[in-house]
Amino acid sequence: MSDDDHKQKMQERQASQRAKVAELQDPDKGLVLVHTGAGKGKSSSAFGVVVRALGWKQKVGVIQFIKGKWKTGERQFFDRLGEVTWHTMGEGFTWDTQDKDRDIAAAQAAFAKGREMMESGDYDLIVMDEINIAMRYDYLSVADVIAGLNARDKRTGVILTGRDAKPELCEYADLVTEMTEVKHPFKAGIKAQRGVDF
Amino acid sequence: MSDDDHKQKMQERQASQRAKVAELQDPDKGLVLVHTGAGKGKSSSAFGVVVRALGWKQKVGVIQFIKGKWKTGERQFFDRLGEVTWHTMGEGFTWDTQDKDRDIAAAQAAFAKGREMMESGDYDLIVMDEINIAMRYDYLSVADVIAGLNARDKRTGVILTGRDAKPELCEYADLVTEMTEVKHPFKAGIKAQRGVDF
Repeated sequence: MSDDDHKQKMQERQASQRAKVAELQDPDKGLVLVHTGAGKGKSSSAFGVVVRALGWKQKVGVIQFIKGKWKTGERQFFDRLGEVTWHTMGEGFTWDTQDKDRDIAAAQAAFAKGREMMESGDYDLIVMDEINIAMRYDYLSVADVIAGLNARDKRTGVILTGRDAKPELCEYADLVTEMTEVKHPFKAGIKAQRGVDF
Repeated sequence: MSDDDHKQKMQERQASQRAKVAELQDPDKGLVLVHTGAGKGKSSSAFGVVVRALGWKQKVGVIQFIKGKWKTGERQFFDRLGEVTWHTMGEGFTWDTQDKDRDIAAAQAAFAKGREMMESGDYDLIVMDEINIAMRYDYLSVADVIAGLNARDKRTGVILTGRDAKPELCEYADLVTEMTEVKHPFKAGIKAQRGVDF
């Protein structure tokens, strides 16, 4: 590459970076956040952000890609509150099932719903809970998920949770937070507790 | 140390470990959780756990050690909901203030309230939001905080949030989660947003 070519390339890159910074400085732009890692707090911090958003009278949707069969505290709370649009597709998919086709269909249907909500412009915030697991097992392709995020209404923020987030998704996201368990010495001894864990 | 002394010491240690495991296996025991690290999600995941707990009809208290002057989404939401006992001492302390004595008094008063709530036996869960910052600046001593945790009603779980958690507190806690920012390339460009950040 000649010096001139290099200079032009760098100028283009700088312009693209500046455009991205300008876009992010737009307070109305919805950000794409990924919560991943093996530690606790990926889903619960998403639900904490839901609470913040509701406090500001924002409109929030949640799609749960897993745990559909569980009775969770968050589900019961938001059902009772009646302010959040909540979708759990079928029973969701789980590691327990032996029917992979059914799981893929459930994940695809969940994402189709999420895509519709993202494009609608009706939402300030959409949480796709445990969607990273659906990508990890190839029930959803990361390319489809990124295409859906790209097609979203500009003002809609999206949080994607679950361990083992795909590198391509992390590259695309505005912010990636990793939750790391730094101390869990009695892991085998602590049972999952109502409230803290589900 | 003689072989016999060593053996006895190891047996004592094993018994103590087993006692701790047995204690943690008690589903009614409230755990001590620390959320720390430089990434996002320390407070929001605590508020997500609050939501879970409320979903199970548990009783929850929150003490805010900072941000007292802020109008936050979570505060507005839980105020409106009216189900959470919420204390923000005075204006809380902030990095802005020049009056260190006033800040120390505010932090001490907040912890005195927290201690009273922990001992009351009335709560399933108490969140001490940003208390780690109060310890970091020596507005509270870690020894006093641990003494307060020790004196709590056995069934009360406590979450202590804030970056730079003291090592002694992490040692004492049942679970420590570190939130790490793995991607924030446009940090200078992204402004704090309603809903996502506060």
